[in-house]
Amino acid sequence: MDRFAVVKVSGAVFDLQNRGGEMVRRVADQLRGASEEGWRVAAVAGGGSVARLYIRAARELGASEAALDQLGILITRANAELLIAALGGVAYPSVPQTLEELLAASASNRSIIVMGGLQPGQSTNAVAALAAESLGAALLVNATDVDGVYTDDPRKNPSAKRLESVGVEELTQLLSGSEHKAGTYELLDHVSLRILERSRIPTVVTSYEGILAAIRGEKVGTRIMY
Amino acid sequence: MDRFAVVKVSGAVFDLQNRGGEMVRRVADQLRGASEEGWRVAAVAGGGSVARLYIRAARELGASEAALDQLGILITRANAELLIAALGGVAYPSVPQTLEELLAASASNRSIIVMGGLQPGQSTNAVAALAAESLGAALLVNATDVDGVYTDDPRKNPSAKRLESVGVEELTQLLSGSEHKAGTYELLDHVSLRILERSRIPTVVTSYEGILAAIRGEKVGTRIMY
Amino acid sequence: MDRFAVVKVSGAVFDLQNRGGEMVRRVADQLRGASEEGWRVAAVAGGGSVARLYIRAARELGASEAALDQLGILITRANAELLIAALGGVAYPSVPQTLEELLAASASNRSIIVMGGLQPGQSTNAVAALAAESLGAALLVNATDVDGVYTDDPRKNPSAKRLESVGVEELTQLLSGSEHKAGTYELLDHVSLRILERSRIPTVVTSYEGILAAIRGEKVGTRIMY
Amino acid sequence: MDRFAVVKVSGAVFDLQNRGGEMVRRVADQLRGASEEGWRVAAVAGGGSVARLYIRAARELGASEAALDQLGILITRANAELLIAALGGVAYPSVPQTLEELLAASASNRSIIVMGGLQPGQSTNAVAALAAESLGAALLVNATDVDGVYTDDPRKNPSAKRLESVGVEELTQLLSGSEHKAGTYELLDHVSLRILERSRIPTVVTSYEGILAAIRGEKVGTRIMY
Amino acid sequence: MDRFAVVKVSGAVFDLQNRGGEMVRRVADQLRGASEEGWRVAAVAGGGSVARLYIRAARELGASEAALDQLGILITRANAELLIAALGGVAYPSVPQTLEELLAASASNRSIIVMGGLQPGQSTNAVAALAAESLGAALLVNATDVDGVYTDDPRKNPSAKRLESVGVEELTQLLSGSEHKAGTYELLDHVSLRILERSRIPTVVTSYEGILAAIRGEKVGTRIMY
Amino acid sequence: MDRFAVVKVSGAVFDLQNRGGEMVRRVADQLRGASEEGWRVAAVAGGGSVARLYIRAARELGASEAALDQLGILITRANAELLIAALGGVAYPSVPQTLEELLAASASNRSIIVMGGLQPGQSTNAVAALAAESLGAALLVNATDVDGVYTDDPRKNPSAKRLESVGVEELTQLLSGSEHKAGTYELLDHVSLRILERSRIPTVVTSYEGILAAIRGEKVGTRIMY
Repeated sequence: MDRFAVVKVSGAVFDLQNRGGEMVRRVADQLRGASEEGWRVAAVAGGGSVARLYIRAARELGASEAALDQLGILITRANAELLIAALGGVAYPSVPQTLEELLAASASNRSIIVMGGLQPGQSTNAVAALAAESLGAALLVNATDVDGVYTDDPRKNPSAKRLESVGVEELTQLLSGSEHKAGTYELLDHVSLRILERSRIPTVVTSYEGILAAIRGEKVGTRIMY
Repeated sequence: MDRFAVVKVSGAVFDLQNRGGEMVRRVADQLRGASEEGWRVAAVAGGGSVARLYIRAARELGASEAALDQLGILITRANAELLIAALGGVAYPSVPQTLEELLAASASNRSIIVMGGLQPGQSTNAVAALAAESLGAALLVNATDVDGVYTDDPRKNPSAKRLESVGVEELTQLLSGSEHKAGTYELLDHVSLRILERSRIPTVVTSYEGILAAIRGEKVGTRIMY
Repeated sequence: MDRFAVVKVSGAVFDLQNRGGEMVRRVADQLRGASEEGWRVAAVAGGGSVARLYIRAARELGASEAALDQLGILITRANAELLIAALGGVAYPSVPQTLEELLAASASNRSIIVMGGLQPGQSTNAVAALAAESLGAALLVNATDVDGVYTDDPRKNPSAKRLESVGVEELTQLLSGSEHKAGTYELLDHVSLRILERSRIPTVVTSYEGILAAIRGEKVGTRIMY
Repeated sequence: MDRFAVVKVSGAVFDLQNRGGEMVRRVADQLRGASEEGWRVAAVAGGGSVARLYIRAARELGASEAALDQLGILITRANAELLIAALGGVAYPSVPQTLEELLAASASNRSIIVMGGLQPGQSTNAVAALAAESLGAALLVNATDVDGVYTDDPRKNPSAKRLESVGVEELTQLLSGSEHKAGTYELLDHVSLRILERSRIPTVVTSYEGILAAIRGEKVGTRIMY
Repeated sequence: MDRFAVVKVSGAVFDLQNRGGEMVRRVADQLRGASEEGWRVAAVAGGGSVARLYIRAARELGASEAALDQLGILITRANAELLIAALGGVAYPSVPQTLEELLAASASNRSIIVMGGLQPGQSTNAVAALAAESLGAALLVNATDVDGVYTDDPRKNPSAKRLESVGVEELTQLLSGSEHKAGTYELLDHVSLRILERSRIPTVVTSYEGILAAIRGEKVGTRIMY
Repeated sequence: MDRFAVVKVSGAVFDLQNRGGEMVRRVADQLRGASEEGWRVAAVAGGGSVARLYIRAARELGASEAALDQLGILITRANAELLIAALGGVAYPSVPQTLEELLAASASNRSIIVMGGLQPGQSTNAVAALAAESLGAALLVNATDVDGVYTDDPRKNPSAKRLESVGVEELTQLLSGSEHKAGTYELLDHVSLRILERSRIPTVVTSYEGILAAIRGEKVGTRIMY
């Protein structure tokens, strides 16, 4: 059976307005690298600034919260298509829209599968955790614009320190402290942590540049301990 | 636009081994009553003992947690079919498998829609909350085998008292205290509460017999306050 | 049988970066107006600036032209969701992705249906024309940021004159003259015109403010003659 | 082209209430054995006691016969998921719901596919026969809790003898004699026999333990002759 | 709840090569008549000469029997589209491909639904019987090019007599006698009869001209007795 | 990555009434030949005489032009099934109905995929061009009953000469000259040419017998120059 790594790619990579496809290409290079070293990869694209743009407009227009989630999911799928374009022929050519479609794609001859969100009420972090469970993945890499979990938001508190590893309980507390500052420091939400915990999926939080190193098992980012 | 009530029907209603379809028929009568009084209803069926039977066997056989969730969802859909059978011609004749299918069904000429779970990683309580958001429901009734929220598990602690209303924060604490006793007192999980809270959906926790009364706005069960 | 009007809403309405949802709301008001006067409406949302943003990034990343079309279609569907949010309960609650889904939606109890693109190789203008054929629509309104067809691009040539009506042949020539200036004056492409022609669908080109007037049969914009 | 064997697994294997997943694991071992010897396998799971539980309750509640069939099919799919869990990575990860999905799965890189029923009005025996036709299977193994076709029901008549082979005509007569004793001795229904006959699919009726031996061509159970 | 009649329209109506759409129009007129008298109708189109043309060619080319059935089903769906075209706005605008899609269509605002075959291994007669069960139809009309059930094939035996009513057992015998003369006198196959019998669906066999009369309950054709 | 050739098979091949499956078998032999030489092939079947039979009848019965297209597409899919039957195990076993399904099929282990039309408003020539774009095909072969592009219709004008190569502009002119003679000389429509042009897909127009030679790069038919 194939060895799978799941990679959550945070929405900041898809900041097309300011950076075009440049970051997407870099993430694609990391994923292709893993594929060349014999891994199969399921990547989950986040939403980012365009998702926020649509959600803001739809909220103004009176959409329900579930409809806002749905709209965000649509944009994560557009982001997933960008990553597929950057990956070329190694990527599964369409975006799975359910876990069942992900599983069907995993039975194809392509080594990398890219998806976005699935259903309202679930963050793409939770989707990545479920994908890891479904595929029996060897690890989950959570790639963000920070290179790991810090004791505080490093962009706000210069004395914040990166942790080499962090227990799930500790991480839950770190996150719940920041929960009310919406949009600032959302790393792994409550649900994703519960899913990771129930299946004890080896997880590393790292930067975009650290994806391949994390898959190889090198010491980068922050490892979540159960 | 139609006035929708969402009713979460807990899995205990589908205890076919011990009670056959008797409880299903009673719940159907309550829902039909609401329909006759001009409401449209979306009911969400839980899993119950057959779901647990399958999940236990599948866990033994080595299924992933996501696959266990999926199996549970299949059984909730079988349960939903029972409720549809008991409702007859007022029910939408098939079980929506996504929120989009629920919305499509809501544009049909049937007054009651019955569904089960949607995706791994989401309880049927969360599904009910999302359904309520999507349909712009006037209220959510959480129908269980207890007639409301108690200060402790009433089946274990005879001095436990039923609350007329409970704040979301307080409820979260009550639940987190019982979280580690799996299968005992799971009423509304963390995710469902977050969804109810973000959309401030009027919610009543009550017994199966209290469904129609709760929809009518009578004083039954426990009301959740935001 | 219901009386249907199809309205093509050009992508410029969805310029969220500069105008948020403001234009979307105005278009929604026009469509709701038509609905209140007894019309059923199928609206087709165009792509606009976000679509171009994605297409540009994907082209850089090496996507095929068909994949670029597909990405644009995804964004038109996100745009359609915005229009649905702004319309509320009169709108069919999901976005048809094929003509068959459009037809199914037309058999529901909602008076307005909103969709985006369908398949690569087909503009949303062509989709609107096919929708009009499929629904046996009484007319097609092509709503753009100009208030009709001009003898030349009115934004470039101040002496350009608006035509009250224009023959299909003449329009084809006007368009083919401008065809090589991509992105400037693309109103109705070759395919859409051929579809309109084969079914002789009464068509009016007008501004967003003129939609309701055009549906009522008032003299606005430019009428296409067969 | 791949060599396919189709295996009908009777519902008695999924008697979770009394035997948990034990029998499922044994059948999975047999199928995995065939896979290791170079065969591709399509297994069709029957319904069993849980299916009967649901059908009884639904009939009480007034469901139509077609709805009862549909409910039974849902449970066969849950049973199929159990077999997939027990098979792990060699199994196609989801349950085909039409013959077309079966064919698509047969073009994947997994050697074993597991499905349940397809449509009301068709037994899982008929589904197995159609699957065998569609895949051009080399043989069909009908695995039951008896080790072959007997001259009478061996659980009732101790002098009943197992046949080494049986002609289709003779089998039809044996079956029609027992047709009115519902639920007792239903082996291969009229439709399945007609499908086997029209395509002359080599078929062996055997016990769960005999599956691998039957696939290998060893002398077990009862062979159907055309 | 709506009163449904199911009408099986035999393939001979779709003999386009010799009669164009003439017969289709006549059948549509009968169905529209029933709709105008307050009935909802589900019509099931058979295959006819074009289906036989394709099946013959595919058999020559080596298709499996299941694939031949599938090809025949495709043509029945094309035939269903013809009937939809002839019915115009009273018809549900697309062809249900499963019983679940039929049920969804029955919850729409259209009074007539037209479908073809569903799955290999099932005749369109069986589909009509299942549709009748699913919809709780008040009756099933089997419209053929003969005006009822005869004691023998009336096209071959001039002394054959039409029966006013016929018992299911008797009909089974009449049919089994003619079973080996493929393509000559296939009226209601074994499976359809078993389905009609299990749900005791009132059934009339009549000519195309007798459809409306049969729905009205007038004395035409042959009635099947249980 | 795989090397793909797309082959448009014109509808004349499926003239079952006059030639049975004979031409289909010959085309299948050519495609199988390419597969044996290491190519993957996506074939697109046209409509032919049966499609015209249905379209004529449906037009008489009042179908919309979009519905006529849809009916034609159904028949192209039946034609595609014939080609699949003739190809046997090297063919993907079902007919993709969208470009996304085509892409999914391209990730399977089968070397040849056969499809028909996709959506109203698009010829199967356009579908073939979009398939070539989507798959990144090395070439597109347009196989017709003439062996290339002639200066005039060779069946009418004996002095018409076959061109070895033709520029897209020139071809557009040749075609527009013949556009008003419906059904006579329709080779590549306006849309297909625009798609070929935008992606500069190497294209050869040739006879059925020339397919394999064209794929091999031998000098047959007429090459389109950009």
